[in-house]
Amino acid sequence: MQASVDLNADMSESFGPWTMGDDATLLEVVSSANIACGFHAGDPDVMARSMAGAVARDVGIGAHPGFADLQGFGRRRIDLGHETLGNLVRYQLGAAQAMARAAGGKVRHLKLHGALANMASEDAELARAAYTAALSVDPEIIVMVLAGTAQEVAARDLGARMACEIFADRAYNDDCTLVDRRQPGAVIHDAALASARILEMIRAGAIIAESGKHIATRIDTICLHGDTPEAVEIARGLRAELEAAGVAVARFSGARAG
Amino acid sequence: MQASVDLNADMSESFGPWTMGDDATLLEVVSSANIACGFHAGDPDVMARSMAGAVARDVGIGAHPGFADLQGFGRRRIDLGHETLGNLVRYQLGAAQAMARAAGGKVRHLKLHGALANMASEDAELARAAYTAALSVDPEIIVMVLAGTAQEVAARDLGARMACEIFADRAYNDDCTLVDRRQPGAVIHDAALASARILEMIRAGAIIAESGKHIATRIDTICLHGDTPEAVEIARGLRAELEAAGVAVARFSGARAG
Amino acid sequence: MQASVDLNADMSESFGPWTMGDDATLLEVVSSANIACGFHAGDPDVMARSMAGAVARDVGIGAHPGFADLQGFGRRRIDLGHETLGNLVRYQLGAAQAMARAAGGKVRHLKLHGALANMASEDAELARAAYTAALSVDPEIIVMVLAGTAQEVAARDLGARMACEIFADRAYNDDCTLVDRRQPGAVIHDAALASARILEMIRAGAIIAESGKHIATRIDTICLHGDTPEAVEIARGLRAELEAAGVAVARFSGARAG
Amino acid sequence: MQASVDLNADMSESFGPWTMGDDATLLEVVSSANIACGFHAGDPDVMARSMAGAVARDVGIGAHPGFADLQGFGRRRIDLGHETLGNLVRYQLGAAQAMARAAGGKVRHLKLHGALANMASEDAELARAAYTAALSVDPEIIVMVLAGTAQEVAARDLGARMACEIFADRAYNDDCTLVDRRQPGAVIHDAALASARILEMIRAGAIIAESGKHIATRIDTICLHGDTPEAVEIARGLRAELEAAGVAVARFSGARAG
Repeated sequence: MQASVDLNADMSESFGPWTMGDDATLLEVVSSANIACGFHAGDPDVMARSMAGAVARDVGIGAHPGFADLQGFGRRRIDLGHETLGNLVRYQLGAAQAMARAAGGKVRHLKLHGALANMASEDAELARAAYTAALSVDPEIIVMVLAGTAQEVAARDLGARMACEIFADRAYNDDCTLVDRRQPGAVIHDAALASARILEMIRAGAIIAESGKHIATRIDTICLHGDTPEAVEIARGLRAELEAAGVAVARFSGARAG
Repeated sequence: MQASVDLNADMSESFGPWTMGDDATLLEVVSSANIACGFHAGDPDVMARSMAGAVARDVGIGAHPGFADLQGFGRRRIDLGHETLGNLVRYQLGAAQAMARAAGGKVRHLKLHGALANMASEDAELARAAYTAALSVDPEIIVMVLAGTAQEVAARDLGARMACEIFADRAYNDDCTLVDRRQPGAVIHDAALASARILEMIRAGAIIAESGKHIATRIDTICLHGDTPEAVEIARGLRAELEAAGVAVARFSGARAG
Repeated sequence: MQASVDLNADMSESFGPWTMGDDATLLEVVSSANIACGFHAGDPDVMARSMAGAVARDVGIGAHPGFADLQGFGRRRIDLGHETLGNLVRYQLGAAQAMARAAGGKVRHLKLHGALANMASEDAELARAAYTAALSVDPEIIVMVLAGTAQEVAARDLGARMACEIFADRAYNDDCTLVDRRQPGAVIHDAALASARILEMIRAGAIIAESGKHIATRIDTICLHGDTPEAVEIARGLRAELEAAGVAVARFSGARAG
Repeated sequence: MQASVDLNADMSESFGPWTMGDDATLLEVVSSANIACGFHAGDPDVMARSMAGAVARDVGIGAHPGFADLQGFGRRRIDLGHETLGNLVRYQLGAAQAMARAAGGKVRHLKLHGALANMASEDAELARAAYTAALSVDPEIIVMVLAGTAQEVAARDLGARMACEIFADRAYNDDCTLVDRRQPGAVIHDAALASARILEMIRAGAIIAESGKHIATRIDTICLHGDTPEAVEIARGLRAELEAAGVAVARFSGARAG
């Protein structure tokens, strides 16, 4: 069994006078933080605070770019061309790098947000456009991909450093897509259940679909949510269970696909 | 007399479907370009094109941050605190760095835009907040300052690399502020007159006010405008006159204050 | 043959420091103006000037709402729910009404812009959501629809006052969609040809597709473009030809579907 | 003693995914609601919900325009010209009118927000520009003014319908400005104390400054805050005390200055 795994969560999702999420609590649990970059959330002041928190906790910093859509929180699909998409990623990545540097840190990974992430998980060409853009800014950046999706295909094709991600609290279909939220059992609300399930996947080195099917994959990082008390409880429970089972929580290495 | 001087102009001032300025023509004349960073002008696609143009012409690249005010083009004063101001500068500088890097270039200087520049030329504490922020992202960045203003005071106090700037087409008051545009003679429309005046200042190593008063200063760069055919004519005429007088047009070195 | 027809064009497409279109010239040619409402173009100052111009010329005023996307000029598809879409339309319509009223005028029609218009021409449910929203603000508003599309279906179903629109400079497919711009002959560049074609359609009371097929339709208004000198020439030529043929240029009445 | 007084509070201050304030609770207490119009808070969906709530509770609806500054929540001063300021007010007022109409209501008053309100309370010319703009859209709109400030001066000069406002929880200086928040006693945290103080002012028909000085004024409405549990408690306590003292809580009439 692998000796360690990374835990990641989205942060820096406040904006101006509006607060979202509990960055301080999440920073106690995760080993990597995905920092919103100002387009869907996270103004420069919010980013500065989040960067300082991540540096203080020695949590790995990621840029988390999304569509320019505050009202929709980056969750609405917008039909951009690949060149425009690439520049959108470059711009936000650069902004995050500067905010990290000013806080004494460094952006080491990139994770796409919301609708942009969904589109990239379905469309390898789009994912490739986004990741190529990020690599044009930093060839050593680690691309965090949804394991088994077009995101992973694109990262492998590019030979990029990558981190394969699974969800702590979502059930999977046989093709590595997530079970529709409206289905019973699609979202896991019980901390013990979530922990057991993740440990089983780590032991198997595979995503285990609802059907029982195993899809072999690297599991470099586990996506946590922090937007509900329940989600934070799952996060804490999972961390404790992993450590009890001898799996250290530590940043991913970002190995390239073999 | 100094062997060379830099010519700089603002660029990348288009946005989405709207075009402003003639970057291609200006890139033939200047040695440094101030690239708008998306807050008052210059969306990521516009920036990408401007960066590519500057790299192709081997023109020095500067980040040109302004207030988040597209409608006002960054020319309206906004009352931010120093911390927020610093983060505004960091964010835009980082975005510009990434766009430059992706184009094979590098941001070497920073020049404040519009109302932000005006406020910084009057208030050394505000200027210091902006420059400190930029230096926290890149300690080697060259701060372009309006010679003789609070901008220069701040850059000197910080021991920053700097480039002192004078205007090609504006008359000066005795305190190094610009003569009000509404006064006759405040704006110089004649290319020959502008060139003669600038050469005189370079020979004197001083700003020469309308009154005739000399205020000694480094003259590292001359600010050109490119928004009218007349302005482009002044730019070209000045470049020719400088070269004829034995003053090469070349990037500033960014020496720290002695 | 009908005694009159309306000519319409988009206006108010400048923003802040950036100019687009030639409103003054278009106002001499058209009988109705579609005023951008600030989300894809047209800030409040621009709108105020356009409204004043339309009132001075006695040109019919329309609200021209689009997606909240300045960079993309409202031409990029954004995936909103129907309720959000309706509120987007209400908000922009209200803003236009206020700007019109302050200028001594009144918004009498509504025309969707860009990607929003394209989506509504394909999806009657989406069109219905947008028009229902507009009617909830003003039950007497005249909905300008692309003749023969889902826009017209929705307006008819709602029993709304409407104005059926055809294009002056575009070739049609047999299903009333426009021939793809990349096909030869898709865009008509010749003023005489455009005028002859439109007069033929008005005489036939039908859209005449490229194939020669006639699709019977009300022709209440003709869409002009004003973004190129050529487009303005077509607009002027068409107006002269219409008047020479005894078809007055006058605002549509906005009759409900019979 | 006057038979009734209005209670007002700001609402509709959420934006996209971010929640602010407790509109539902406030709607039980107030007789007038100031609805943010999308520039500093309150996107069209948020406005639609707030309008529906106000209509359902029969609470008077006001447009509450502010600067275009989401990050700063409209609390940062922006230096606009009067014409631009007027168009900013017209646009937001129109948007609010449409959202109200669609919900079956009507905007009857206007109250400026944040830094815009502060500037208008100091500068009667600026206040006049804002109110003139609102009156150009609706000559019967009731302007809510901070009693004793330049806002009131402007409304009186314009002969506008108006509502004079005092604060429930703030101490006053002798010139009707508010005591600086950093001074002890500047903000009243105790519900009983706030109620007693307001009743005393209503009985006196005057603002009673911290010094004891009386400044005679109409008291048409009392400004409540709803952003803390304490503030809601003050609001509820004040309403109960007013009713116990025989002062009904009811919308202001909007009488013009005598």
